[in-house]
Amino acid sequence: MSETLRGGRLSSKRDDVAEFTSSIKDDARLADAVIDINKAHVIMLMEQEIIKPQDAAKLLQTLFAKLDLKMDSSSEDVHMAVEEAVLQQVGPEVGGNMHIAKSRNDQVATALRMDLRKQLINLMFSVVTMEQALAETAEKHVETLILEYTHLQPAQPVTFAHYLLSRFDALERDLQRLQSTYVRVNLSPMGAGALATTSFPISRERVAELLGFDGLVENSIDAVGSRDFILETIAALTLTAVNLSQLAEDLIVWSSPDFGVVELRDDFASTSSMMPQKKNPEVPEIIRARASHVLGDFVAAAAAMKGMPSTYNLDFQEVTSKLWEAVENVNSSLKILAELIPNLKVQSDVAEKGLKSFVAATELANTLVRKYHVPFRSAHKIVGALVKTLIESKRTFKDATPELLQKTAKDTLNIALTVKADDIAEAIDPKKIVESHNVTGGPAPATVKKALASRKKHMAQAKSNVTELEKKLDEAKKRLESTARSISEGKIPENGRFKNSKR
Amino acid sequence: MSETLRGGRLSSKRDDVAEFTSSIKDDARLADAVIDINKAHVIMLMEQEIIKPQDAAKLLQTLFAKLDLKMDSSSEDVHMAVEEAVLQQVGPEVGGNMHIAKSRNDQVATALRMDLRKQLINLMFSVVTMEQALAETAEKHVETLILEYTHLQPAQPVTFAHYLLSRFDALERDLQRLQSTYVRVNLSPMGAGALATTSFPISRERVAELLGFDGLVENSIDAVGSRDFILETIAALTLTAVNLSQLAEDLIVWSSPDFGVVELRDDFASTSSMMPQKKNPEVPEIIRARASHVLGDFVAAAAAMKGMPSTYNLDFQEVTSKLWEAVENVNSSLKILAELIPNLKVQSDVAEKGLKSFVAATELANTLVRKYHVPFRSAHKIVGALVKTLIESKRTFKDATPELLQKTAKDTLNIALTVKADDIAEAIDPKKIVESHNVTGGPAPATVKKALASRKKHMAQAKSNVTELEKKLDEAKKRLESTARSISEGKIPENGRFKNSKR
Amino acid sequence: MSETLRGGRLSSKRDDVAEFTSSIKDDARLADAVIDINKAHVIMLMEQEIIKPQDAAKLLQTLFAKLDLKMDSSSEDVHMAVEEAVLQQVGPEVGGNMHIAKSRNDQVATALRMDLRKQLINLMFSVVTMEQALAETAEKHVETLILEYTHLQPAQPVTFAHYLLSRFDALERDLQRLQSTYVRVNLSPMGAGALATTSFPISRERVAELLGFDGLVENSIDAVGSRDFILETIAALTLTAVNLSQLAEDLIVWSSPDFGVVELRDDFASTSSMMPQKKNPEVPEIIRARASHVLGDFVAAAAAMKGMPSTYNLDFQEVTSKLWEAVENVNSSLKILAELIPNLKVQSDVAEKGLKSFVAATELANTLVRKYHVPFRSAHKIVGALVKTLIESKRTFKDATPELLQKTAKDTLNIALTVKADDIAEAIDPKKIVESHNVTGGPAPATVKKALASRKKHMAQAKSNVTELEKKLDEAKKRLESTARSISEGKIPENGRFKNSKR
Amino acid sequence: MSETLRGGRLSSKRDDVAEFTSSIKDDARLADAVIDINKAHVIMLMEQEIIKPQDAAKLLQTLFAKLDLKMDSSSEDVHMAVEEAVLQQVGPEVGGNMHIAKSRNDQVATALRMDLRKQLINLMFSVVTMEQALAETAEKHVETLILEYTHLQPAQPVTFAHYLLSRFDALERDLQRLQSTYVRVNLSPMGAGALATTSFPISRERVAELLGFDGLVENSIDAVGSRDFILETIAALTLTAVNLSQLAEDLIVWSSPDFGVVELRDDFASTSSMMPQKKNPEVPEIIRARASHVLGDFVAAAAAMKGMPSTYNLDFQEVTSKLWEAVENVNSSLKILAELIPNLKVQSDVAEKGLKSFVAATELANTLVRKYHVPFRSAHKIVGALVKTLIESKRTFKDATPELLQKTAKDTLNIALTVKADDIAEAIDPKKIVESHNVTGGPAPATVKKALASRKKHMAQAKSNVTELEKKLDEAKKRLESTARSISEGKIPENGRFKNSKR
Repeated sequence: MSETLRGGRLSSKRDDVAEFTSSIKDDARLADAVIDINKAHVIMLMEQEIIKPQDAAKLLQTLFAKLDLKMDSSSEDVHMAVEEAVLQQVGPEVGGNMHIAKSRNDQVATALRMDLRKQLINLMFSVVTMEQALAETAEKHVETLILEYTHLQPAQPVTFAHYLLSRFDALERDLQRLQSTYVRVNLSPMGAGALATTSFPISRERVAELLGFDGLVENSIDAVGSRDFILETIAALTLTAVNLSQLAEDLIVWSSPDFGVVELRDDFASTSSMMPQKKNPEVPEIIRARASHVLGDFVAAAAAMKGMPSTYNLDFQEVTSKLWEAVENVNSSLKILAELIPNLKVQSDVAEKGLKSFVAATELANTLVRKYHVPFRSAHKIVGALVKTLIESKRTFKDATPELLQKTAKDTLNIALTVKADDIAEAIDPKKIVESHNVTGGPAPATVKKALASRKKHMAQAKSNVTELEKKLDEAKKRLESTARSISEGKIPENGRFKNSKR
Repeated sequence: MSETLRGGRLSSKRDDVAEFTSSIKDDARLADAVIDINKAHVIMLMEQEIIKPQDAAKLLQTLFAKLDLKMDSSSEDVHMAVEEAVLQQVGPEVGGNMHIAKSRNDQVATALRMDLRKQLINLMFSVVTMEQALAETAEKHVETLILEYTHLQPAQPVTFAHYLLSRFDALERDLQRLQSTYVRVNLSPMGAGALATTSFPISRERVAELLGFDGLVENSIDAVGSRDFILETIAALTLTAVNLSQLAEDLIVWSSPDFGVVELRDDFASTSSMMPQKKNPEVPEIIRARASHVLGDFVAAAAAMKGMPSTYNLDFQEVTSKLWEAVENVNSSLKILAELIPNLKVQSDVAEKGLKSFVAATELANTLVRKYHVPFRSAHKIVGALVKTLIESKRTFKDATPELLQKTAKDTLNIALTVKADDIAEAIDPKKIVESHNVTGGPAPATVKKALASRKKHMAQAKSNVTELEKKLDEAKKRLESTARSISEGKIPENGRFKNSKR
Repeated sequence: MSETLRGGRLSSKRDDVAEFTSSIKDDARLADAVIDINKAHVIMLMEQEIIKPQDAAKLLQTLFAKLDLKMDSSSEDVHMAVEEAVLQQVGPEVGGNMHIAKSRNDQVATALRMDLRKQLINLMFSVVTMEQALAETAEKHVETLILEYTHLQPAQPVTFAHYLLSRFDALERDLQRLQSTYVRVNLSPMGAGALATTSFPISRERVAELLGFDGLVENSIDAVGSRDFILETIAALTLTAVNLSQLAEDLIVWSSPDFGVVELRDDFASTSSMMPQKKNPEVPEIIRARASHVLGDFVAAAAAMKGMPSTYNLDFQEVTSKLWEAVENVNSSLKILAELIPNLKVQSDVAEKGLKSFVAATELANTLVRKYHVPFRSAHKIVGALVKTLIESKRTFKDATPELLQKTAKDTLNIALTVKADDIAEAIDPKKIVESHNVTGGPAPATVKKALASRKKHMAQAKSNVTELEKKLDEAKKRLESTARSISEGKIPENGRFKNSKR
Repeated sequence: MSETLRGGRLSSKRDDVAEFTSSIKDDARLADAVIDINKAHVIMLMEQEIIKPQDAAKLLQTLFAKLDLKMDSSSEDVHMAVEEAVLQQVGPEVGGNMHIAKSRNDQVATALRMDLRKQLINLMFSVVTMEQALAETAEKHVETLILEYTHLQPAQPVTFAHYLLSRFDALERDLQRLQSTYVRVNLSPMGAGALATTSFPISRERVAELLGFDGLVENSIDAVGSRDFILETIAALTLTAVNLSQLAEDLIVWSSPDFGVVELRDDFASTSSMMPQKKNPEVPEIIRARASHVLGDFVAAAAAMKGMPSTYNLDFQEVTSKLWEAVENVNSSLKILAELIPNLKVQSDVAEKGLKSFVAATELANTLVRKYHVPFRSAHKIVGALVKTLIESKRTFKDATPELLQKTAKDTLNIALTVKADDIAEAIDPKKIVESHNVTGGPAPATVKKALASRKKHMAQAKSNVTELEKKLDEAKKRLESTARSISEGKIPENGRFKNSKR
């Protein structure tokens, strides 16, 4: 059990209590960030003349060395593990000052944000990769007809590319939300201390800059006490996960042989231990289920934060684990889907099935409106009655003759209606229907091609934006390292700044 | 039971089924939007020469008249109620064409977005009003000391203004999220039809413009099948509600006489039917509980959307009711809090309590570091031990003499330490502590004043931005009305556009 | 604004605050229970000689009269509305004592339990009615073959009756949970007062008996501060709702023409406003979505209760509304399903489809084990390979000749295998397969008939048990009324009890 | 990648897909259960003469040996890992028959229930241990006065024992729910196969008996397709977790020095890295937060199950992990609390604080009713006004003189009231108040002692019941082992049963 903080106010902690309250398992991932924060903090303390250059040099040397971190429940958390490892190296005289003007409360918030911004960048790359998979697959299926459903009932013919682009556009909004979230995540709480900043003349701005942040979480109570950046991330991920689960549902339903719209490649499916004929769509099933996990993570995090008093409470520690779960969950789903989508086989011959399921009914009604001047609501009723008649006599739209239509119009609305056989034939041809649906956002191949082109351009831009974010972090990291290195070697760094201009 | 859609494909619906599936109760609020959509749609159909000018005129006249909407379960929904009311007025020949090239699937998505954008504007105004209440109250309490807590244990002194600004900044992020959401909400799905647009040469862009949208939800499957705009709104509201519930928790705890930090005015509290001494903080309790409602709404909506197949499913209808619940819930909480906050009495004399609860301990340790060159970690241990000794002998920081400190330093770390009584006195004075915490984001009155000034400027800008959004909608509405009016009177509107330039 | 409780400790409440905190909308349903509680309480106060018989008589007369309850936000809640209506009738001398030894804290908990127990009885009746619908429909379909799926892939043939009984058995567990919950609901908190009972010599047992409770929630802090009876009810309802949503999902998928297993009767379905061919399964879609609502209600209630300090907090008020939502939601779903199920058309001719989807594969493998002594795992692999070959050449099990099987066995595992054509024919006949699956719980008609018979017996017992609960409440109510009536008329009731035996 | 099931219907699986879909990490815990199931199944297959005694012997020998289970993603799951390890030992001729008449679908449901029933027993023991801690601590505090709060406002004095018993009674209901759940968990799905049982003449009853189940999940579709036993468990645990979080909240609030009701022992608390005076209640904070986790687990599981089609879907796999999380979470919270509670220091001297916070107000009003015949509602108003006067002049109940009371009664309700000073003194003495609250369930020491005695008796019974459940499982396990051992050694076991009585 770590004793650095004990022996003064409190005596030792029981082992079972230490284990119960320790966050060390989740903290391992934060170790790098915590070391960077300590480097930046030490640099700033020296620049602000709060600690001596030679002390700063010693601390930085230690922080560069391989620290012997005790990452088990004998340390309370990663913050104490790092401080204790440093203390062991340089002794209390020098090491005892590394924690001047900071607290675990601001340090943990800072480390979380540093880890999370990297994860957000990964996630954004994964979304773009998934978009790429959708766009490339769409490119191959601009002419591939499928029947789309509403209420799981056959509705209208579209192209598979059109369907894939609908998923693309949904993902694009997910990307936008992650981008907005990034802006609120990449701010530095450091210097907020326990909740009230400090009486030492620190520069919070300098630490933020050294750590690659775009600015501060300014108010100190807000800086240590807010976790909406975590809730916002999990909320954004929940929406992404729901989007992916809808795609998964389509794949599950459509790969059922009864639908037979798509088929997973063998290496993406499993069979049954008992039933030799089975080919089960396991990947989409897992994705569908895991959307529930992310929702559960959001509930866990939001219910924990709800009603918290201001500033820091240990409950926050338990919120963090749910964040990482959600991040990992959605990222792995995105990655596997980006592999699965381009490998789908699509059943493109929908002609007969289309006739059987009457997906041309709307277009036939439209034809009556357009060419025969029947009001739409009347056309809708006539065609509805026609469909009913055909179903009841186990026939399809192939059997929709001018005579039958005439009789139906008469029986239903007492309208005299003589439709040319050619007009019927054209109205019930899925290919022609799709081609005629060429208004903005429609499924016509020409329309989809245009949409695809603009999305590809947009995607390149999105990718470059994310790359830019990553580059900024890399550069900040390099600057931090070189500044810290110089000081640790007793040099005054070029871009070092000092409180008073005397140096 | 509405029969406009029946008698063709399907025979009549049972009354109990009609009642079970009807959305009419939630739909009432959409009636105005649905009428506007029909106006815009009719204008566009005429401009695109899909219907005749005289038919358009008749339809618009009817839409201007007071429609006799059957808003009970005899109508399936508001869409059919409007169409049926129009049909009754103008007859099937003309009225039957109002539904050309549209579907309830695109129409309901459009109406929802029109209602929601108004609600978002209301919410943004409410957030700004609440920010105003916080800022104005803060202005009065820039010098008012309170003790802040972490883990509900006394931590450090700050000012009440500093605390209020922490709430302000949290709300500011809520506002940002609502603003981002607005951008994704104010897009038009109209023209997507059932899922595949239409073969009629409609202009989706024109309808969007007439209805005040900033653009399209382009892909037609996405347009009718996505509800992430609802989930995103409820998610944003959940975060706002969690923020408010934290403020509520502070008020509940702090107005407990044991804490005695704040007191609600009588007219914001209640008493007990049995215990005559009670003064219960009912408003914050309700707000705290209602955050759970919004979270529940999010779960209901997300769990319903999870695993939905693409395009429209009736499950969507059940998602909408949760949106309105969440909107109303958060809006009313914001409004009552904006009244309550300025009326809080704040208990500002914290001197004695501060000494008793040792909130100056950090500053005393800082003093040892700064003036006596004790390493921070050692200073922390010495002061910790000092506090322990004082508590055990039921004394306070008033009893922290140089001698006792000397003895404690000796006993704890075997350090010889002679501290001046004046230094101790200064270190434990809450007022001085707060004044010395003057780094960016700190609680020092001067720092807080600066923060307050910048927030007030920002707030004015935010208010003006929201007002701008509202104005744009108002202007679009006026343009729609005047265009529709002109056509209904048989005139060709000035800003009317026609497909072929022949007119 | 109600002033009965104000003017002493607190001055008036603002109207907006009154409206914000009032529970009166949800409280209307509790009015009858609250009046009964007051009757029982008054009887007990008199019997315990805490109030005088003539005062008791006057109070009871008033409680029998039609009270003018102010059920708007001018009353805080139904408790004050009743007390104020009584005060207005009988004046403060007598009326002012009705609230001796009780508090709204115990009274509201008691009223909630009284309303809820009635709702639980209704729900249990609805479950039994739904079970009846399943059992009666099953009876008609003992021989109706359907194909069942796992992972939405065709798996094995069963009977429709077997499927329906699986739903029956799931519902039976729902019923058990409601029954368990009832036991914990039907206990009386009355007499717990605000949290600490009272110093008046009341009889809590007598009040409990007069109100038809089976016992006390004994500990007074627990009595006013626990709401697990609400959480438990919503949890049980969530499980029921999830069960119903699974049934709904089956109906939605199976009524898709691609599956074509069942068809809803016209009067249970809807069509599209645009697509005349549609027949949408609206009722099951709503039921599927509403399961999410109940889950949301549970989250709202549990998140509100989590972390509550002990005894009563106003947050509880907000938990109640979610309970009633959940109760109403599940009850209406049960009722409409009990109408819908018996009206399903079932597509029973599955022979061809069965061959095409290879649902006999398991049985063919079993045949190889049983008659040809092939180890099961080898048989599984051979039949799997056979299915693959047939699918790739677009053939079905009809084309599974002894020769093809022989070749496949050779190619796959190098096994010499000569199977009789008759054995294949028998193995792939769905009817024979189902008949052979006659172990306990299997789909064979004979087995299902036995299962059905035992379930019908059980159901009759369940119905009688619920009826018994209802009867007990009715009788208690009658006793309460007659006792109260006697006292109100100045008589000493026969079953009246007095503290001291002197009467 | 495991190939036992592939090479027939499907070719190999990709490694990333295998890893994504594998449940092996969660499955490790099921290995023992799966081996037991295979033993029981083999015994039954032999007894039913489906496999030969010598084959059964070989299979059982292998199952007794240390199996080389490949518990990484190279196995799909534990079921295949066991089967493959057996196949490797005994070869395909014998090993290939171990999976006759069973499927992973029934096997996993059975293994889950076997693991869960053990966990439920552990949980029930933990609840009883926690009850014991509460009862023993209560015993020490039967006379210890504390002030209880409602709405976090001081309400009435009770004893600490009375408070602890309120927690005991809440836990008791948690125990009841776990017991009910156990009954529905300890049923055997084995023999349901993939969904339709089998055509082999198996005995499901025999397997159930060998595995220590109390009966069958009879209907085969229900047996493989229901997971309400998981949802019910997590729901019960959510309620327990909410109960514990309420206790945790009390401890957090009460150990704040402002309240100062309880104090955690040093070894159960932590300090701050910055603020040396801190003593933070970490254990209760973690417990409070973790209740949210269990709620999140329930949401994840319920949202995944909602809308699932019947029978088995792979989504189920993802539900299981949430079950184990919830079980572990609640169990560890119960265990640490059972240590913490007996070590609480309780601040018992509440006299002065009680006067200051007017917790005697109700009793003073009661005194006016009882001794001075003031109607309760009037007494309530007078005492309320008295409290207001005293607060406004910064006085306490010590200053409540007969004269002041007289004046207040006059001013408020124009009542002449002369109260004896002795009556006031008695009414405001917390000890006397508590003693007078001696009705059933009240806080009077005598009443609490009785309650405690009955709870201790009950607890002993509960413990013995759980022990009984555990014993039954142990005995079944021993019988299974000895039967399997005999057969594996070629003996016919004494309690072996055979299909035909010829042996």
